[in-house]
Formats: sequence, structure tokens, C-alpha cells
Amino acid sequence: MWFTEKWTPNIHFSVKVKEHLLSEKTPFQQMDFYDSFDLGRFFTLDGIMMANQKDEFIYHEMIIHTPMSIHPKVEHVLVIGGGDGGSVRELTKYSSIKSIDLVEIDERVVRACQVYLPQMTIGFNDPRVNLYFEDGLLYVKNSKKHYDLIIVDSTDPIGPGEGLFTHEFYQNCFRILNDDGILINQHESPYFEKEKLEMQRAHQKIKDLFPIASVYQAFIPTYPSGHWLFGFASKKWHPTKDFKRTLCSVLDIKTKYYNHDVHLGSFALPNYVKQELGINLK
Amino acid sequence: MWFTEKWTPNIHFSVKVKEHLLSEKTPFQQMDFYDSFDLGRFFTLDGIMMANQKDEFIYHEMIIHTPMSIHPKVEHVLVIGGGDGGSVRELTKYSSIKSIDLVEIDERVVRACQVYLPQMTIGFNDPRVNLYFEDGLLYVKNSKKHYDLIIVDSTDPIGPGEGLFTHEFYQNCFRILNDDGILINQHESPYFEKEKLEMQRAHQKIKDLFPIASVYQAFIPTYPSGHWLFGFASKKWHPTKDFKRTLCSVLDIKTKYYNHDVHLGSFALPNYVKQELGINLK
Repeated sequence: MWFTEKWTPNIHFSVKVKEHLLSEKTPFQQMDFYDSFDLGRFFTLDGIMMANQKDEFIYHEMIIHTPMSIHPKVEHVLVIGGGDGGSVRELTKYSSIKSIDLVEIDERVVRACQVYLPQMTIGFNDPRVNLYFEDGLLYVKNSKKHYDLIIVDSTDPIGPGEGLFTHEFYQNCFRILNDDGILINQHESPYFEKEKLEMQRAHQKIKDLFPIASVYQAFIPTYPSGHWLFGFASKKWHPTKDFKRTLCSVLDIKTKYYNHDVHLGSFALPNYVKQELGINLK
Repeated sequence: MWFTEKWTPNIHFSVKVKEHLLSEKTPFQQMDFYDSFDLGRFFTLDGIMMANQKDEFIYHEMIIHTPMSIHPKVEHVLVIGGGDGGSVRELTKYSSIKSIDLVEIDERVVRACQVYLPQMTIGFNDPRVNLYFEDGLLYVKNSKKHYDLIIVDSTDPIGPGEGLFTHEFYQNCFRILNDDGILINQHESPYFEKEKLEMQRAHQKIKDLFPIASVYQAFIPTYPSGHWLFGFASKKWHPTKDFKRTLCSVLDIKTKYYNHDVHLGSFALPNYVKQELGINLK
């Protein structure tokens, strides 16, 4: 039995499956969990692979440790999406953080990950973590709490993740970020046409709002093209100029992908990616 | 019709094909050329994709412009393999180079690429280029000519590329490199098991012979995992410490992937890759 993801209508990525562990239509989306020979367990939402045991560490280390190595004092963090728990797990490794609010629209994702991918959800047991099962768009609109760091750990902008790619959403994120706050968003990919267009949309939104709007990249082999991007939007701190190796708390955290050279290198985008994003070639 | 490459026995990468342009058993290997919807034309050797029109520029820019931005005076270059012409094409952009010797075991690869991928083979018309259709292992063993730069643009170490992964081959390359010479080899990938083992073998060989042996990486979406490596072996010049932005001749060459930040960032390996290569984590 094979799981096949259509990276494009004409490019397919197929994974041999040992067992189809769960197939469920939640109120928001089709959710499936599988066990595979080469990637271990993985889950999909509406047929798109979200995370697998072999390489989820790459995505989650890069989305969390990058901003945590820049901002000198992160105390309150908001995670939008991220129901698999990977981002929260990485955040709980920092003793300096006081609260982590996770806003996930689909409670079933959290509950199923707790059953089938428990190594990803261990952070949910941390007393600093609060789970809110509601629409991220509404949460940021109504929130009176302010944050040092917002992580937009969303699916693609189709289905329930769609609202998280709107201008209104980012405007509200900007409002509830402290004056030196940072926002990171999953930023799609430059290579195939569909993700390229989503990448351009995502970048336009944060570029219009934030004084600092950069993009960084990681090698994530099981996402379409393996070249995946994150947006770094910031009110004050610059992602490479304000990077001080000696001050970074991540030094004490054992990582499998992230390190300080990787941090700096991840912001070095190839020319064709810069051109797609409208960034001048130096 | 689909072309499927088995990235592992349990992970398949499939490309929808418009037309199967050529299928030929050469004296050395099975060679196929296709036209596809999303990648343009591409060719395979023994069922492995070598190059396609959409992203061959990434591999060829990174294998050539990286050493060319370090070595201050490259005059004589040897390319082993590389029958598709991509590496030679990038080299011919440097007016400072005096001779480019290409040693390709399989003349049929060159001739078929000249027919089906002519934009890759334009460098072969340059008067500085000499084509030798012979075994690279024997060429370096018998060569009396010395080189400033050797590019090992080989297939995987199965079939005709096998000899290019031996200790004897690298020993002879070392011998015919000038005292400040650089050797670059295609270095496989850290992610899937087979390529990981080949990567470790390749690194061990250059590490034993060269005072400077580094590894750098590029996002090549159509190679297994999309995370592809190159070896940088050098007698004198260091790939990042001896990098001077103002001196690099590549500044005058229009590139779609390579730039100077990408150069430096490409040597920033993730922790898990360093561990596989036996490089200390800082």
C-alpha cells in the first residue's frame, strides 16, 4: 500500500505504507495517520503530509530556535495552528518562557497526535502551555494579551488554514505583538508553481506590515521540492545583524538540525528565490 | 506515461512524461531522454535522473562557481564525467581559464545531450575545451598535465562511475593537482540510507588525502531528498576563510542560484549531517 502526495499534478511523491492507522473526517478536514517503512509514522490533512517521525525535527527546530536565538527575552508565546505539538515541544525547552498559548482550530488533530505521535505532543503536559481550540483568525482579533513571539504554524492556505493567510490576520498579529516582537510563519516553497504563488502572497503581507521582513530556508526532504521557507517578521530585531552567538539560549539545547552557522546560512537565499520575492540581488 | 525513480525501495518520485525521446543501451549504461510537463526535458542513466531543464542550473552553478570564487587564478581545469556539458558551460564563462579537459567514459552521453539538451552542451564549442572519451580512472593515472581545479562530476558509485569513488582515483587527482589546487566532487546526500553511506565513503577518501576537506550543500529538488552535497578538497585555499567578496570573478557572471551569501551559507551543515560525516559540533 502506498500513500501518494501530488506535489504538482505532474510530480508525485509516494511512500510505502505499513499500516493505515486512522482515517477520520473531522469537522474541519480529512485526517489520516499512517505507519511507513522509511519515514516512520506520519499524518496528513486533506491528503497533504504534515509531519513524519524521520524529519519533523527539521521543521520544528527551524521554526522555533531561529527567533529564539534573536529575541533576547521571550516570555509569552502564541502558536497558531501547530496541533501536532512539535513547535510547542521545542518552546518548552526554554526555561525563560512563561506562557505558551496554542490556538488550534481542530481539536481532533491534537487528540490524534497524542495517540499516534506522542513524542511530538509531550510539550502539552508542560504547565506553561494553554490549549485553545478555536479559529486563529478570531483569537488574534479578540486577544487582549500581548506576545513576544507569534508562530504561525499553519497548513497551506486551502481549507481551514485559509484565514491565516489574510491581511486582517497579520494586522491583528502585529497589534498583539510587543514592540520588539517577532512573528514567524510557514512560508511555503519557491520551486513548484502553486507553493511559489502562496510564498509570494505570504511575503507580500508581512512586508507591508513589518519594518523587518526576511525569509529563511531549510532542507525538509518530505515537503514538496524539499526547499521550504519560513517568514521572519519583526518590529525591532534583525535576524542576522542582531544575532550574537554568545547570547543565544539555544546553546544549551541539544539540536539535530539547527546550529548558529545554519541560522546565518538559512537567510542566504538563492538568486532565483530572491527574484521571486522581489528582493534586490546584491 | 510516468517516469518513476526509486529514491529508496519505499519512496518513489514520479514525473509525468510527454514523450520518451530516446532509449538506448550504450556500451556502458542504459540511457533515456524524456520530455516532461513540469521539468522540461531530462535524461536518466540506469534509471537515475541526471539533469533536467528546470533545475540543472542549481547543480552546475554550485559545482563550478563555488571553487572559482575561492581560487585566485584557475587556468587549467579537468572535468571527470559531466558528459551533459553543464559544468563545462559554466567554466567557459570565465575568460581567465585557458584549458578545460573533459574526460567522459561514455561518448554517447555527450552526443545525445548535444541533440536533446543543446543548451547544456554549448560550452563544447569553446576552443579551450578538449573532449576525451575514456575512463577517468585511467586518465588521472596516466596524466602528465597538472591542473588548478578538478571537478568530479560523476554518477553514483554504481556502474561506470564506480572507479571514481576509489582511493586510487583520488590519490592520482591529488598528484596532478597543482600546489594550490582544488578538487570538487559530487558528494551524494545525507538523508536516505544509500546516499548517506556513499556520502560517508566519499568524504573519508578526500579527508585522508587533502589538508582541507569540507562539504557544502544545495537545494536540488529533483535529486533524492532535495538535499545534495558537494565535497570541497583543497591543498591550500579554505572555502570560507579565503573567500573575498571583492576579488571574485563570479561577480561578473549572471547566476540564477549562486551568490556570495549562498556560497558561505552552503558550508553551514545541519548538526545531523555533521555527525554523519564525523565533524565535531561546535
